[in-house]
Formats: sequence, C-alpha cells, structure tokens
Amino acid sequence: MPVLPSGYSIRRVESSDYEGVVETLKVLTVVGDVTKEQFEETVAYWNEVTVKSKGESMKAYNPHVITDDSGKVVATGNVFIERKVLHDCGLVGHIEDIAVAKNQQGKKLGQLLIEHLSDLALSRGCYKVILDCDEKNVGFYQKCGYSIKGVEMDRRS
Amino acid sequence: MPVLPSGYSIRRVESSDYEGVVETLKVLTVVGDVTKEQFEETVAYWNEVTVKSKGESMKAYNPHVITDDSGKVVATGNVFIERKVLHDCGLVGHIEDIAVAKNQQGKKLGQLLIEHLSDLALSRGCYKVILDCDEKNVGFYQKCGYSIKGVEMDRRS
Ligand SMILES: CC(=O)N[C@@H]1[C@@H](O)[C@H](O)[C@@H](COP(=O)(O)O)O[C@@H]1O
Ligand SMILES: CC(=O)N[C@@H]1[C@@H](O)[C@H](O)[C@@H](COP(=O)(O)O)O[C@@H]1O
Repeated sequence: MPVLPSGYSIRRVESSDYEGVVETLKVLTVVGDVTKEQFEETVAYWNEVTVKSKGESMKAYNPHVITDDSGKVVATGNVFIERKVLHDCGLVGHIEDIAVAKNQQGKKLGQLLIEHLSDLALSRGCYKVILDCDEKNVGFYQKCGYSIKGVEMDRRS
Repeated sequence: MPVLPSGYSIRRVESSDYEGVVETLKVLTVVGDVTKEQFEETVAYWNEVTVKSKGESMKAYNPHVITDDSGKVVATGNVFIERKVLHDCGLVGHIEDIAVAKNQQGKKLGQLLIEHLSDLALSRGCYKVILDCDEKNVGFYQKCGYSIKGVEMDRRS
C-alpha cells in the first residue's frame, strides 16, 4: 500500500471545510452555488444520522478529506452505510463523491482515500462495499481491490 | 403505463410483512436466517431515519410492497434518499432490493414498483434516481425509463 506524503492527513469532514470540499468536488461534477450555510447544514445532517445494527450504533455517513502539509483540503470522499433485510439484515457501504484536486494527482491520494473508506465500512460490518464509476475509472478501482459487479443505471428529473 | 391487477395494491412495508418480504427477497439473493424480531427492528429503523433538505423532513428509506387480492406480498423494493453537497446540496434516490415473486411474473409488477419508487424519489426533489443491476436486467430497466450510466464495482469482506 502507498502511504500519505509527509504532513498530509486524513480525517472526517468538519463544517470549516466548506471551501476546500466545494472546490475539490468540482473536479468530479457540477457543484452549483452551495453556500457556507448549506454546506454546514449538510455536515450537521451527516453527523446526526446513525445506523443501528446488532446493538451497535454508528454514523451512517462518513465523509472524509485528505489535507496537505498546510492543512488545505486536497481530496474528499464519503461512504454511507445502508441497512438491508437481505444477507442477514446486512449492511452495505456506498462509496460516493470521490475527488482529488487536479494538482495533487499522482500521489496515490485517491487510492489511499478509497482504502480508508473501504476499511471503515468493512470494519463496521458491511458485507460489501460498492461504488459506481465511469468506464474510464475501472482500472483505477481495480487497483483499489474492487471488481466489476454490474451496471449502474439512472433516471434524471 | 401498465396498471395493477384488480385487488392488488402498493404500500409502504409494515412490520407485519415479515414472511412476505423475506420470502420474496429470496428471488433476488441470499437472505439468510432473518428472524421476525430482526425484521421488525429493521423496519423500525427504516421508519426512523429522516432526510432533511431545504427545510423539509422526509423518510430516507422508503421500502414498499405490492400485495395481491388476498393481501399476500408478491413484490418488494426500496428507495433510499442520500444527501450530498454536489448538485446544489442535491438528493439522490437509490433503488435497492427489487424482487417479484416467481409465480407473479408477467404482470408488470416490477415495472409498476420501479415507477412508483422513482416517482416518489423525484417528487421529493432528487436530481436523479440510480440503481445497480445485472447486465441481463438492463433491458427491463430501460423499459422503466432508466439509461446506462456507469459501472458498478464491489469489494467483499
Ligand atoms: C465512486 C464515485 O465517486 N462515484 C461518483 C458518484 O458518487 C457521484 O454521485 C457521481 C456524480 O455524478 P453526477 O453529477 O452525474 O450525478 O459521480 C461518480 O459516479
Ligand atoms: C435494482 C436492484 O434491485 N438491485 C439489487 C441491489 O439492490 C441488491 O443490493 C443486490 C444484492 O446482491 P448481493 O447479494 O450480490 O449483494 O442485487 C441487485 O443488484
């Protein structure tokens, strides 16, 4: 496994990460005009939702950032935990919204983030972790220990 | 759009649906030894989690069943609503665990269920609804208004 460059760290998103997360997410897709207030409210919501399973209670949303040696956000991603009936009332981790700042690519930050989020979900008892990605990113996720499982389909409003 | 056969109806899952839901899900995948108590606890959890967005609060999990003219569960599926930062702090509906009893196939129950769950998610403000399926079900979901978006990948414990 690669390791984080010196001075970089990985931690849960905080409400003060507004600018860093919003800027970083723009690499992935449309972010829109998210205000500081809306961001903070979303983080508060993420902090509040719990998933209970087999007597334990844990956070359902697990948004993370990697920060560089100056504390700047350079990567972000989330894993939320879904509770099902199938697979013995099993839990599934959904990895979402992975983005690495353009000028930070080549440092394996994406791989480290995926590893961290996957381990988090598996260690909380998920029987699987899934994610949806573009065809062009399949090779990257295979390097992170993921296999092709099926087809993602969508319907837009 | 097809319509439900006479006497059939669609409604939210109740804790008394234990046998019907567990039996029906076996068409889709491994269910395991889910007890009545575990099922009821899962339904209670699903009823409890809310998603707040733009001042409104609604249920995050929306598990449904179709029942036949005798009240028996013949199809089941869920849509849960995820809250993001991207797309203006947008919401995404995730359709999960769609199963139709084998002896009920050919009545378009699957299509009716998908339509119902998709409308529910879009009417609550989701900018998209997504699902993951086997290659062999792509044609079915296309008939339900879905398009291929990407690749589903997984990592198992
Ligand atoms: C592994 C990963 O990060 N996948 C993301 C997904 O989480 C995100 O929701 C989507 C946004 O795309 P959209 O703007 O088309 O909804 O992009 C990618 O599929
Ligand atoms: C649209 C739909 O119903 N998709 C389901 C998914 O929701 C479910 O979680 C999975 C279980 O499969 P597993 O037993 O391999 O986890 O099967 C299908 O992909």
